[in-house]
Amino acid sequence: MSEILSSLRSLMATHSPPLDALVVPSEDYHQSEYVSGRDKRREFVSGFTGSAGLALITKNEARLWTDGRYFLQATQQLSNEWTLMRMGEDPLVEVWMSDNLSEEANIGVDPWCVSVDTANRWSKSFAKKNQNLVPTTTDLVDEVWQNRPPSQMSPVVVHPLEFSGRSVSDKLEELRSKLKQESARGYVIAALDEVAWLYNIRGTDVAYCPVAHAFAIVTTDSAFLYLDKKKVSTEASDYFKGLGVEVREYTDVISDVALLASDRLFSSFSSKSTKDMEIDSDRSDEWLWVDPGKCCYALYSKLDADKVLLQPSPLSLPKALKNPVELEGLKKAHVRDGAAVVQYLVWLDQQMQELYGASGYFMEAESNKKKRTSETAKLTELTVSDKLESLRAAKEHFRGLSFPTISSVGSNAAIIHYSPEPETCAEMDPDKIYLCDSGAQYLDGTTDITRTVHFGKPSPHEKDCYTAVLKGHVALGNARFPKGTSGYTLDILARAPLWKYGLDYRHGTGHGVGSYLFVHEGPHQVSFRLHAMNVPLQASMTVTDEPGYYEDGNFGIRLENVLVVNDAETEFNFGDKGYLQFEHITWVLLICSLHPIK
Amino acid sequence: MSEILSSLRSLMATHSPPLDALVVPSEDYHQSEYVSGRDKRREFVSGFTGSAGLALITKNEARLWTDGRYFLQATQQLSNEWTLMRMGEDPLVEVWMSDNLSEEANIGVDPWCVSVDTANRWSKSFAKKNQNLVPTTTDLVDEVWQNRPPSQMSPVVVHPLEFSGRSVSDKLEELRSKLKQESARGYVIAALDEVAWLYNIRGTDVAYCPVAHAFAIVTTDSAFLYLDKKKVSTEASDYFKGLGVEVREYTDVISDVALLASDRLFSSFSSKSTKDMEIDSDRSDEWLWVDPGKCCYALYSKLDADKVLLQPSPLSLPKALKNPVELEGLKKAHVRDGAAVVQYLVWLDQQMQELYGASGYFMEAESNKKKRTSETAKLTELTVSDKLESLRAAKEHFRGLSFPTISSVGSNAAIIHYSPEPETCAEMDPDKIYLCDSGAQYLDGTTDITRTVHFGKPSPHEKDCYTAVLKGHVALGNARFPKGTSGYTLDILARAPLWKYGLDYRHGTGHGVGSYLFVHEGPHQVSFRLHAMNVPLQASMTVTDEPGYYEDGNFGIRLENVLVVNDAETEFNFGDKGYLQFEHITWVLLICSLHPIK
Repeated sequence: MSEILSSLRSLMATHSPPLDALVVPSEDYHQSEYVSGRDKRREFVSGFTGSAGLALITKNEARLWTDGRYFLQATQQLSNEWTLMRMGEDPLVEVWMSDNLSEEANIGVDPWCVSVDTANRWSKSFAKKNQNLVPTTTDLVDEVWQNRPPSQMSPVVVHPLEFSGRSVSDKLEELRSKLKQESARGYVIAALDEVAWLYNIRGTDVAYCPVAHAFAIVTTDSAFLYLDKKKVSTEASDYFKGLGVEVREYTDVISDVALLASDRLFSSFSSKSTKDMEIDSDRSDEWLWVDPGKCCYALYSKLDADKVLLQPSPLSLPKALKNPVELEGLKKAHVRDGAAVVQYLVWLDQQMQELYGASGYFMEAESNKKKRTSETAKLTELTVSDKLESLRAAKEHFRGLSFPTISSVGSNAAIIHYSPEPETCAEMDPDKIYLCDSGAQYLDGTTDITRTVHFGKPSPHEKDCYTAVLKGHVALGNARFPKGTSGYTLDILARAPLWKYGLDYRHGTGHGVGSYLFVHEGPHQVSFRLHAMNVPLQASMTVTDEPGYYEDGNFGIRLENVLVVNDAETEFNFGDKGYLQFEHITWVLLICSLHPIK
Repeated sequence: MSEILSSLRSLMATHSPPLDALVVPSEDYHQSEYVSGRDKRREFVSGFTGSAGLALITKNEARLWTDGRYFLQATQQLSNEWTLMRMGEDPLVEVWMSDNLSEEANIGVDPWCVSVDTANRWSKSFAKKNQNLVPTTTDLVDEVWQNRPPSQMSPVVVHPLEFSGRSVSDKLEELRSKLKQESARGYVIAALDEVAWLYNIRGTDVAYCPVAHAFAIVTTDSAFLYLDKKKVSTEASDYFKGLGVEVREYTDVISDVALLASDRLFSSFSSKSTKDMEIDSDRSDEWLWVDPGKCCYALYSKLDADKVLLQPSPLSLPKALKNPVELEGLKKAHVRDGAAVVQYLVWLDQQMQELYGASGYFMEAESNKKKRTSETAKLTELTVSDKLESLRAAKEHFRGLSFPTISSVGSNAAIIHYSPEPETCAEMDPDKIYLCDSGAQYLDGTTDITRTVHFGKPSPHEKDCYTAVLKGHVALGNARFPKGTSGYTLDILARAPLWKYGLDYRHGTGHGVGSYLFVHEGPHQVSFRLHAMNVPLQASMTVTDEPGYYEDGNFGIRLENVLVVNDAETEFNFGDKGYLQFEHITWVLLICSLHPIK
């Protein structure tokens, strides 16, 4: 048994109460998709490096749940102490726990790493057998984690109006008017991109995500920011002062939320003086707004549940609706980013011809595979993606990648979120499909693009599959639809051409993209999953168009552009609903090699 | 003020308690879509003849809610005492009532004519202002209705195995196994087609619907049928005896449901003897199953609400999954029906050329409109549809139409469920689009088909619209999709080609079709409405494919085939889900005239 699991089981046994099981989610204190090195607890305990998943450790078992993008990768990375649980095929984690753990079992979780929604769903499922969800007082994984990476201590920076396009006071005003609409006296903000967007700040605490680890609380008359004060320069401090945003220590958020609950949280910037402020009796019937999918259970548990408005965030739609400055920035960033990708594909084509005797994208022929001499450079999934990064890095406003580049050859491309590792990554191959899904952070926008190419002669089956994916990509990208249509409704447009052959893909078709923020952003999406129904697509949203097809052990295909939702100038306007269409802002040819230009 | 409204208002005032409003639904005691003449209470009070709608009469107002298919027709038929409420645009009826009626208002409804779902939804909405839904003890409309049509007294007939394909005992066995699965000791059946399907009987009590007015109750060890015993011949009586089905008077159902509630409903055919049967104590924790959408509130109110399993009918999916005999019958019926429609279209083409100088379907030219002499016959929407009916009536197994033929010229075709009337119907016109939606009942199957034609030179706009509708029809009809896909997901395939132009239609895209039963049948459907998500399409279901486009005041286009869902023999089977596709069983050319064969 691995030392980590045995240490964890010892802590579980000595915990008060003793734990029958410990859940280790992927998320950090902010329910982030991408987390910093020191927050990769689930990866540390399980060895599985994918971005999504959940580990469960019982006295005798260790199980890892993950979704279809990661089945192959998890199979490869999990040791034989672990059992892979396939989401969508195997029972849900809460169903498995309630079915397989004993009556009255105590199931521990760090309440900072689990959302209100998730904790409530689990508790409900546990009730059947009187099982208990036990919030641990410390994170047991942190206790056994030797050599845990240190905290990032980089400063927060102000994101200027020339890129953000909208003032903080304007954003606060809109937020407060929504609070008033819902009779709420405050909103607790845990999502890192919401804090960054609202206060027009950025950071470098999390790889690929230009955000700082921070919480925020906004009430009808005050605004707070919680982060390690060492990250706040004098300039930033003045900036926050100018906005009337009170900066407090990161660790103060929990006590401040408790004060907020009893309406005793006062800001020095508030119009009212702190000293003579008493509990406002006419506010006693007002709510505190918490997004149950974005806020951790630890903070929520300090509130009076009867006074909490559990509703989707009031910030996620305003953040998704890009303002004109953001739209212009995004388009410019995509022009630069597209140029880098085109430079890369041209370079790669030449390299593959020179080093491997490939016929090249535009000549369909078997490779005349050269035997590499010791002098000729070897190209691997990683060395080529380093080249791509260097081409991007030379572009104006470049600030880093927006997610780990998926540079994958042949069967690796069938691993939907494959991440090449130096020791194990594959060599480039002129006879295999190459899939590259990558993106970058620029001060003026975030990019995300996938292209799939072949350097020589793809098989007829590979061509058929590519054509079907391309048809789906085009059908969605060219769609026009009435206002009010959700991404749930549109999803089939991208899948129908694959379904003709009995093919499909186990992921959604599109996600929002941030403005120099998260590469995956809600609240809208294009997907067969029900939550894609929650928010319709709306003009000035960004969304990706990325159908794919993955054949385990053989190859993978994905084609991804970023689209902007625009009003459509349709000839008619039946039902006076107004119609929408997409503008492709990704600038890289979709078709090379697999359908050669002769 | 009309005499009907003033009489109703007098009855409302003298009712105990006095009523502030009276709701008059379209439905009969069985929540039927098509109802017999004596059940057309909503039509009688409002004058609106459409199949769907709801009338609300308050002390000072009269409002009629109906859906998009009927907006135009309702506008034309309602007197100025009535206000049209457009479903999908105006507030829902329960929202309007709770917003506009006074605190503690009493809102009456005949509890036989309203479903459990509807009554509960209204009551919930009324709670805000302490308003009450009052079940009237008699139907007030019946009281003021002079010259109300008499009850039908036609006999029920046995639907033989050569057409039904499945024995009653087999159906009862499946039903009882579902009851056991859900720990239910009985199912109360109010839907006319469910009674007919379960007992393999048919009737002629309702125009277009081959059913008898009947209820049924099935328990784990007994089966009851409630109908006017005058409809039961000696032969039918023997048939029911042979099945162990106890036949009781229609009006007995209410007292029997009350007996069922206390587990004192005994059948003379039951294995247990009635006399020494006591309440079975081990059955006290069992449920009584009621479909809240299909059962009236009157029967439900006799049950103990805590012991009622409110769930979709256990019969609707088995009824929708056609057995091989039914599928064969449906296909044969569609061959005969298609022949009749082709004969009709050929006849019509010739008539239009001879009488009106039309160039005919296959020659695109302006009409050389002849001046009819007094001797030449005049063709109207009704006279031509009579011809169609006569052609169908000559076919084997013909039993009548499956719904009122929609035979509509020009702007009348924009009224989605237009029904031509002798005095007001339009004359045929060689320069206008003609839409014909019709179907018939044959002993071996029910048909439903829509064709839209032009006898000469359609405008470029008409052609564009026709082409978009045709593209949608073809896209849906040719779809392949994984098992588990609902009609909600598929609906967009038929709409997307219209959306390109900013066009759409205000109705669903497809409904199930019965086997010599109702032309509209669930539980599945193809629609943008959420309930289309409830049941996925499954092999051996029937479903129509009928997109359209309607331009008020100008023309309407609809193209409808009946499809059967089949397993698809796809090249691959990604995800081992199995894929499905459609088989078109309608046999009439889709394209004539609007896209002339030159």
